[in-house]
Amino acid sequence: MQARDLNWMQVEEYLARDDRVVLPIGSTEQHGYLSLETDNILAERVSAEAAESLGVLVLPALAYGLTPGFAAFPGSPTLRFETLVAVLRDLLDSLLTQGFRRFLVVNGHGGNAPAAGLVREWAASRPDAQAIFHSWFNGPKVLEVAEAIDPEYSHANWGENFPWTRLETVEPPAEPKPMLDEAAYRVADATRVRELIGDGSFGGLYARPDEEMLRIWQAGVDEVRELLEHGWR
Amino acid sequence: MQARDLNWMQVEEYLARDDRVVLPIGSTEQHGYLSLETDNILAERVSAEAAESLGVLVLPALAYGLTPGFAAFPGSPTLRFETLVAVLRDLLDSLLTQGFRRFLVVNGHGGNAPAAGLVREWAASRPDAQAIFHSWFNGPKVLEVAEAIDPEYSHANWGENFPWTRLETVEPPAEPKPMLDEAAYRVADATRVRELIGDGSFGGLYARPDEEMLRIWQAGVDEVRELLEHGWR
Amino acid sequence: MQARDLNWMQVEEYLARDDRVVLPIGSTEQHGYLSLETDNILAERVSAEAAESLGVLVLPALAYGLTPGFAAFPGSPTLRFETLVAVLRDLLDSLLTQGFRRFLVVNGHGGNAPAAGLVREWAASRPDAQAIFHSWFNGPKVLEVAEAIDPEYSHANWGENFPWTRLETVEPPAEPKPMLDEAAYRVADATRVRELIGDGSFGGLYARPDEEMLRIWQAGVDEVRELLEHGWR
Amino acid sequence: MQARDLNWMQVEEYLARDDRVVLPIGSTEQHGYLSLETDNILAERVSAEAAESLGVLVLPALAYGLTPGFAAFPGSPTLRFETLVAVLRDLLDSLLTQGFRRFLVVNGHGGNAPAAGLVREWAASRPDAQAIFHSWFNGPKVLEVAEAIDPEYSHANWGENFPWTRLETVEPPAEPKPMLDEAAYRVADATRVRELIGDGSFGGLYARPDEEMLRIWQAGVDEVRELLEHGWR
Amino acid sequence: MQARDLNWMQVEEYLARDDRVVLPIGSTEQHGYLSLETDNILAERVSAEAAESLGVLVLPALAYGLTPGFAAFPGSPTLRFETLVAVLRDLLDSLLTQGFRRFLVVNGHGGNAPAAGLVREWAASRPDAQAIFHSWFNGPKVLEVAEAIDPEYSHANWGENFPWTRLETVEPPAEPKPMLDEAAYRVADATRVRELIGDGSFGGLYARPDEEMLRIWQAGVDEVRELLEHGWR
Amino acid sequence: MQARDLNWMQVEEYLARDDRVVLPIGSTEQHGYLSLETDNILAERVSAEAAESLGVLVLPALAYGLTPGFAAFPGSPTLRFETLVAVLRDLLDSLLTQGFRRFLVVNGHGGNAPAAGLVREWAASRPDAQAIFHSWFNGPKVLEVAEAIDPEYSHANWGENFPWTRLETVEPPAEPKPMLDEAAYRVADATRVRELIGDGSFGGLYARPDEEMLRIWQAGVDEVRELLEHGWR
Repeated sequence: MQARDLNWMQVEEYLARDDRVVLPIGSTEQHGYLSLETDNILAERVSAEAAESLGVLVLPALAYGLTPGFAAFPGSPTLRFETLVAVLRDLLDSLLTQGFRRFLVVNGHGGNAPAAGLVREWAASRPDAQAIFHSWFNGPKVLEVAEAIDPEYSHANWGENFPWTRLETVEPPAEPKPMLDEAAYRVADATRVRELIGDGSFGGLYARPDEEMLRIWQAGVDEVRELLEHGWR
Repeated sequence: MQARDLNWMQVEEYLARDDRVVLPIGSTEQHGYLSLETDNILAERVSAEAAESLGVLVLPALAYGLTPGFAAFPGSPTLRFETLVAVLRDLLDSLLTQGFRRFLVVNGHGGNAPAAGLVREWAASRPDAQAIFHSWFNGPKVLEVAEAIDPEYSHANWGENFPWTRLETVEPPAEPKPMLDEAAYRVADATRVRELIGDGSFGGLYARPDEEMLRIWQAGVDEVRELLEHGWR
Repeated sequence: MQARDLNWMQVEEYLARDDRVVLPIGSTEQHGYLSLETDNILAERVSAEAAESLGVLVLPALAYGLTPGFAAFPGSPTLRFETLVAVLRDLLDSLLTQGFRRFLVVNGHGGNAPAAGLVREWAASRPDAQAIFHSWFNGPKVLEVAEAIDPEYSHANWGENFPWTRLETVEPPAEPKPMLDEAAYRVADATRVRELIGDGSFGGLYARPDEEMLRIWQAGVDEVRELLEHGWR
Repeated sequence: MQARDLNWMQVEEYLARDDRVVLPIGSTEQHGYLSLETDNILAERVSAEAAESLGVLVLPALAYGLTPGFAAFPGSPTLRFETLVAVLRDLLDSLLTQGFRRFLVVNGHGGNAPAAGLVREWAASRPDAQAIFHSWFNGPKVLEVAEAIDPEYSHANWGENFPWTRLETVEPPAEPKPMLDEAAYRVADATRVRELIGDGSFGGLYARPDEEMLRIWQAGVDEVRELLEHGWR
Repeated sequence: MQARDLNWMQVEEYLARDDRVVLPIGSTEQHGYLSLETDNILAERVSAEAAESLGVLVLPALAYGLTPGFAAFPGSPTLRFETLVAVLRDLLDSLLTQGFRRFLVVNGHGGNAPAAGLVREWAASRPDAQAIFHSWFNGPKVLEVAEAIDPEYSHANWGENFPWTRLETVEPPAEPKPMLDEAAYRVADATRVRELIGDGSFGGLYARPDEEMLRIWQAGVDEVRELLEHGWR
Repeated sequence: MQARDLNWMQVEEYLARDDRVVLPIGSTEQHGYLSLETDNILAERVSAEAAESLGVLVLPALAYGLTPGFAAFPGSPTLRFETLVAVLRDLLDSLLTQGFRRFLVVNGHGGNAPAAGLVREWAASRPDAQAIFHSWFNGPKVLEVAEAIDPEYSHANWGENFPWTRLETVEPPAEPKPMLDEAAYRVADATRVRELIGDGSFGGLYARPDEEMLRIWQAGVDEVRELLEHGWR
């Protein structure tokens, strides 16, 4: 049940029977050969699919996140740390006022991980609310499925190459790429990050069979739905 | 040309020949009988249609804006003033670093109007950049067309009831509603705002013939395209 | 009744019978041949004259506002967006604590217009308070009178040339100046703004007969007084 | 030479021969029987008189400062700490851009003293600028003169009772008041501050002969002028 | 080489031959039966021991961190998210100005993990600097050693019970405690956190033999030293 | 009674009988020939000694403060003004929530003096709390003792040369140094500050007999203890 398909009266009816809401957050940024909106697409879609059978409300994705490390890849605007924190605080605060009580922030972007701390801080002092920050792509079940398929599950490689994030007219390389040198990456400024990762993928294959991707996807959807159903106190 | 359909390499090619970019901003909020995402839908779509023939890059809409006055209508999360300012500053700053030089912020929400001041402030001290803030729904041409059709052109009434913002299963009232008492609205806190506007529309008819709506839409698209082509120094 | 002429005990007595207060805000900035304090003078004076017969309290003008676009004109210090927001929030917050309930912010500077959004945000969540942001120079009555006199009513031209804003020893040009190119202005950084407007006026005549100016002034005073008397819920 | 009496062209001429500027800062707040604007009046006037013979530019007073401790005295709006800091930073930053290099902040309010730290911080990293924060009322010369007259030189008592801060129609008590209990004041919240100081004066006499006041005033003017002339490197 | 044992001249000499610096960060907070300063002690000590043989400069620990979740345990003051971010930004900025180029933030507190994002953001745009955020207690080597000893390696249990964090006069329980219910913990506000964890430990044994603890410690020291020596580009 | 030697259960017991807490704040910065941690050491130690016989809780020192003026002396990281304010506000806020009611901030660094204003602001609006900011090194009793010994009591000279702040292997000059030119210092940016003060001391002797130092120390301890015992309402 997505906000796009509802008006406020329908949300008011919803609040009479439920108090859950999903806020997907992503980032518009380089994903190698894949769409710049990969993180937004995945976060919003995994939320929508998970929530559908439960009839839970899903808000539109916040399309901008923390991606200062990709500054040398055009098309990767970033928020500063404090700004993302302020956005989340404001949204949670105002939704709480409007009657929501259980918040699931579904994150699609590794760089947004620090926001988990803010969500926890926010909820710690609000006894009447619960808030969970969940990065869908590395939930325990998703990781288990993905790493069983191929341990090189990472940024902008096959691991994010879903039918709904690939670009029609773009054919990624058939050959795998050496994996990212993590030690070098850790101390790379934005220019060096681009030197290190070249086309933007963190390495490995660029694509895997859809059947495998759909198994990962299903794990992701299940895991979000599990939280929506049973993640609360 | 929307970010969703591009990867960063394509943006890099684009930057070799162009330096314009469109950032649509909206608000997820009550629109009477219409979609909660009305402002996001309209800002993003008018931008995309205007930019298409010019091949200009359009970013995804920022789906959250300033709407504290609708706090009593569930489904209307708001940013605080400083937060929207910070988001825009960050996005403009980082896009400038990545090579963009001409920024068109296409706004779909009246309450975001103060952000025009921030965009102006940002550009005032950057001689190598230009930034325009344009509220598509009240550009001079749109206003002329819309008010000729019906002077009661306003929030959540027929004026925002486009084929792409109405909800399939919802039938708005056939009869017009008295227009908003603006003097009362000016001094209403959120609770009184809801008392004043009831269903969320600011009054007048709830729908008008699509032919009329498409004329307004065309004026909106034209006006954004005009700015994209000739609005620069 | 101006704060300058009162002590706190007199304000306490006042609060026993009234809860209105006027906060004039301006900007110290270039006004062509006119005083750098034009906006402060006008905002404070129009407030004082309007409030006098009603016995309403008027605070001293905030003499600094948002004027980043005039950065190339010396004598035009500016606040950043967030700073003006913080100042207004603090003043409203602390005055509310002290018993004031109806706030009229009388603005004398076009660039401060975004602050209207903050005032609205502030009031939206305070059911016991009312706050109005009013730019005195473009209230409907003032605009009607001024534009009937001369449609070229603008910044630093005759429209701000009152007996109390002109400088004794300075004689402005007798001939009119071409009006500002608004399209060019919209995309001008601070240096280009100065190139565009040269002496600082936005164009038109530099002075008009005092009789005309006093009619505009009277409309401004009346409009502020009207709000003070009848603008509340 | 006050900004009120100048236009920007005159400031530009001034900057061709000088780079000093005075920014008076005060506070609108309770001063016992005296004007709520006492601090603003004194800071602006002492600056203007000191600067006059030197032809140095004086800006309008910032009429709002840090006075959270007087919250129980109506008519005492306060800025928060960070807000005053932001205002000063913005004003210094933008004036520096416009060609000013030597800044004298003349403070009229004890509670603003922490801002001295901000001024120092600001100047520490700007080798081309100098900035001095001077509380005119407790400069060494003023203190020497004032305490020789009467050691009970304090807030809202005779020490601030100048011909230009007293109210025409208000007669303060003839008898002195016991001095403030400083230990109790140190740990008093706003309500207790009012209980402690009652009418707002910190104690002692409410008035002294004008001849004495003018000697203090002259010391204040001299001290500001001395800084303007010889305080720089 | 700790700042405590040096003066600035010695740091200047140091900078002639080295540009590394270690900033330990911790948190003053409940650690069950252990010292409130456990995180500070461990972060500072592991840094000092690792740096000693290399002669690298270690700054004093920042003794306050992010611990809103322990608000119901007295003696656990917390910073807000934005505040820790600001502290780290300021310290890195000013140390960079003073000649340091390689920064190792050694973190002793799980709740501070989001600050890794800030450190990464800070370094991304500074090509002349490198900055690593390292949580010493869960580096890969430490985890390997610790989990081999006992998989229940967690907050305030045996895993933090070192000779230098235990309190002389306090004897922790001999029996293990059931491990924390992580799902319940995730949605617990501060009051429920206390209900869940009771004495503050996350479960398991309260102490293990010193010989085991020293092996963990050695792994921690080695891992920090490894980063200091070979972690840079 | 220092936090380092306590666990939270002991603090809870403490709160059942007392509600006082001491927060020492310092600065890591140049102190001429003395330890970079001089201010931290002194603030924490004077607090601990004063509190010991009273059994009052002392928190760990905040080791970073406001020292932008020493930017040219390596090893002097600084916080910005707003950052220190935020740290103190957060710590006071969260400690208040945990049951503390009487706060003594013991400051060891002259540059932190503006924070007194924040502490006052914080307490002004909290009727159930008391907060005192005390710079131990210039309390009236300390000043009296110190200036009787030698009026040249200042930064990084003998006045801070205690057995616990001097470095074992460093011998300061035997001869006194001319005192700082305060007028020049006031308008010096960071580079000029270093030129002015050279080795970092503000002038005078570098050391005095321990017997004298211990008399100053005793006055400092007494004065803090006096506040802890009798400084409250």
